[in-house]
Amino acid sequence: MEHWLTMRANLSPGSTAIELDNGDTYTFLQLKQKAERFALQLSNVHQQGHLAILSDNTADMIIAFWACTYLKVPTVFLNTRLTLTEWQQQCDDADVQLLLCADGYIVGAEHLQQSVYSFSHIHTLTPTDKALASMIDMDSVCSMMFTSGTTGRAKAVMQSFQNHWSSAVASALNLGLMPTDKWLICLPLFHISGLSTLFKSVIYGMPVYLMERFEEDKVHHAIMEKQVTIISVVAVTCERLLQRLGEANYPTSFRCMLLGGGPAPKSLLEKAKQRHVPIVQSYGMTETSSQIITLNAADALRKLGSAGKPLFTSSLQIIKDNREALSNEVGEIVVKGPMVTNGYYQRVEANQKAFRDGWLYTGDLGYLDEEGFLFVVDRRSDLIISGGENIYPAEIEDVLLSCDGVLEAGVTGMKDEKWGQVPVAFVVCDSEQITSEHILAYCQERLAAFKVPKRLMFCSQLPRNATGKLQRYKLKEC
Amino acid sequence: MEHWLTMRANLSPGSTAIELDNGDTYTFLQLKQKAERFALQLSNVHQQGHLAILSDNTADMIIAFWACTYLKVPTVFLNTRLTLTEWQQQCDDADVQLLLCADGYIVGAEHLQQSVYSFSHIHTLTPTDKALASMIDMDSVCSMMFTSGTTGRAKAVMQSFQNHWSSAVASALNLGLMPTDKWLICLPLFHISGLSTLFKSVIYGMPVYLMERFEEDKVHHAIMEKQVTIISVVAVTCERLLQRLGEANYPTSFRCMLLGGGPAPKSLLEKAKQRHVPIVQSYGMTETSSQIITLNAADALRKLGSAGKPLFTSSLQIIKDNREALSNEVGEIVVKGPMVTNGYYQRVEANQKAFRDGWLYTGDLGYLDEEGFLFVVDRRSDLIISGGENIYPAEIEDVLLSCDGVLEAGVTGMKDEKWGQVPVAFVVCDSEQITSEHILAYCQERLAAFKVPKRLMFCSQLPRNATGKLQRYKLKEC
Repeated sequence: MEHWLTMRANLSPGSTAIELDNGDTYTFLQLKQKAERFALQLSNVHQQGHLAILSDNTADMIIAFWACTYLKVPTVFLNTRLTLTEWQQQCDDADVQLLLCADGYIVGAEHLQQSVYSFSHIHTLTPTDKALASMIDMDSVCSMMFTSGTTGRAKAVMQSFQNHWSSAVASALNLGLMPTDKWLICLPLFHISGLSTLFKSVIYGMPVYLMERFEEDKVHHAIMEKQVTIISVVAVTCERLLQRLGEANYPTSFRCMLLGGGPAPKSLLEKAKQRHVPIVQSYGMTETSSQIITLNAADALRKLGSAGKPLFTSSLQIIKDNREALSNEVGEIVVKGPMVTNGYYQRVEANQKAFRDGWLYTGDLGYLDEEGFLFVVDRRSDLIISGGENIYPAEIEDVLLSCDGVLEAGVTGMKDEKWGQVPVAFVVCDSEQITSEHILAYCQERLAAFKVPKRLMFCSQLPRNATGKLQRYKLKEC
Repeated sequence: MEHWLTMRANLSPGSTAIELDNGDTYTFLQLKQKAERFALQLSNVHQQGHLAILSDNTADMIIAFWACTYLKVPTVFLNTRLTLTEWQQQCDDADVQLLLCADGYIVGAEHLQQSVYSFSHIHTLTPTDKALASMIDMDSVCSMMFTSGTTGRAKAVMQSFQNHWSSAVASALNLGLMPTDKWLICLPLFHISGLSTLFKSVIYGMPVYLMERFEEDKVHHAIMEKQVTIISVVAVTCERLLQRLGEANYPTSFRCMLLGGGPAPKSLLEKAKQRHVPIVQSYGMTETSSQIITLNAADALRKLGSAGKPLFTSSLQIIKDNREALSNEVGEIVVKGPMVTNGYYQRVEANQKAFRDGWLYTGDLGYLDEEGFLFVVDRRSDLIISGGENIYPAEIEDVLLSCDGVLEAGVTGMKDEKWGQVPVAFVVCDSEQITSEHILAYCQERLAAFKVPKRLMFCSQLPRNATGKLQRYKLKEC
């Protein structure tokens, strides 16, 4: 297929591609020209091999990403909230050769072993005359993002152009496509919910309204005043927006609040229903290149609490004891479709475990009702979802166990009014002299702030099953 | 990919798939169930090999077509207006083993050498327990339709599932997709403009409003009263609808009159503009599985007369003397994209001529303006378009030349108020005793009525170039 951004710039050169909340806009032609120029500048220092981007949501980040596609360079997206240690590990695991970062991150990122350049530095280079890609190889890797698992060590999910294309098309077939659509991004572009909107923008010819981060006043204002029609949210941001909305109503042109990133409390959905907020529940993950199961607007009220049905082109099964579960019987959620990743980068064992006969075994639990609507009972039992970020207990436990004096460690999620859930840790230590301050300081050096346990409890033993496996679900009884 | 109709019936079982103008409706679940049942009944007499359908637009025809997809049987669509001789030739050329027809055609079709069954007969059979297809092989041939060329003998265009899928997706990316969409079909389903809407219906989850044929009062009424949002038309039907509309206006929910099937007179477009009729001009053909170039609504008035730009995923070039033409320079229209056929069935030579490096050489003439908008100057010079039907002079000339006493024959199109164009013939005969009545009667036995020359002129010689090639464009000077 011809390069998507090139096609779009030819088709709709003057249409708005990006609108920033400071009022700046970029047309598709401008975006393409800037991406091409940046690609030629970047080609002075990088021509092939994996490249990482470390940035908050900015136009520069979008330009840098599209530039990579013109160089046929896969982009590894790093979470800005991680520590240097975590960035280093992810860069190593993904074979990153060069890292591009927003200027604000250069001081921290410079300590990485890879070559590191700021966007500003690249802008100073003289463009080369390298030939840029005119076509897209649909089966090649476009982007990589890290997700963790029960083993603790994060895995790089490979997302192909075909994955992103299929996701954008399937989403349009479900949500529809209006000439007036404008999609607000306030979730990070280094998460799939943010990134996937960039592909929709170029494939649909639709403007994105880009915010550097979620700020409820600004988002509220944009929905009320800036003709935004769709926004992607997670439960926490949805809750805050509804509070900010109060007794008011959104404009009728605002047609979809796409809710993903974890389970939504029924009370939240009820509140949204009362205020006529057009919430569209969905279920998806990094491995499915964003939503793969979505609740139709037509069924939204009738099936409150359901994540919906598979998008067109994708399939869903509930597997229990190696067979398809009956209606209303809980089992593992298993999905298939052209938006599902081909696997984790260089993780043979994890791939064998997660992918069987073309199906992705998500590890999440759910059931189908008589009409085939999915109800997610629980994300994989050990997953903590805090403000839309996934936190894997095993990763925190690994750090705790590496701290001198800690013999055993167990981490679980606890309810939190603001973030939905926060991690709390239970440890068994070899002496009573070790302090929680010491352990938490140790964690702070090695873990992103949102992963550092909010409470630390000392115990004499942790709940384990007969084989000695930690029973995290029992931790709260300690 | 899972079977589209199965997926759709699972996703939107209760949504309307087909609405007939007698008020009958079929949901997607009903359509799927009826198609599956018909497939199992049909499997008594046909399990594999090409099958032809001969029918006007009815729900039975749609059910029979989807039934074939459940049997993985490619469907050859026959034009109901052809003669028995033409049907026989097309069935033979496409290796048709069995023909299904609407009850009204059984008397004529029974003379074919193939097995022939009416829909009603199949309905009387006991369903077998054959396993139906649960998946679609995207690269396999879904449908075949005949189109002619300069050689006179019609060629079967092979349309794969991938072609139809890509066409439906690209159309949605351009025209948008509203939850309220309802597409009226009044063009024959045996033409690609009709058939392509069936795929859109199932892929989008959108109702089609099906009419057996174009009748301006009924179509007008449906647009005014039946919440139709989109209709496909050709210039002749568009003209008649505008006349019927008079000084009235269509409802604002009516958002697209998709105009294809040949050039549109500028006066027609001006008239539509005055009456605020949302005409969307397009260019396409059987080989491109319907529109491949379409004018955006946003550019409709600014670029009146243009066919637009390529749909997303497709590409367009103007080739003159084996090079890309400059802006505003007329050359051959050459297109590429996933909706373009892989070729003509068993026509090696024609395929070599039409397809080069993945591009389809259409034989039509046009140019691109400075902004890349296509203006079609002329369909391939010898093509006559009469009421939306393509007529190829060579085919008529072949028949004329086979008539005793006719030495030379040339056919060209002449303007006609009602049909746009009609065919007229010029012949050189070996005696003055042969009458035009005799020759026309001979044609009527062998050619569909719309192909029979409306006038016949006797000449002493036909205009030919130095090599003796007929110069059809000079015929009018005879």
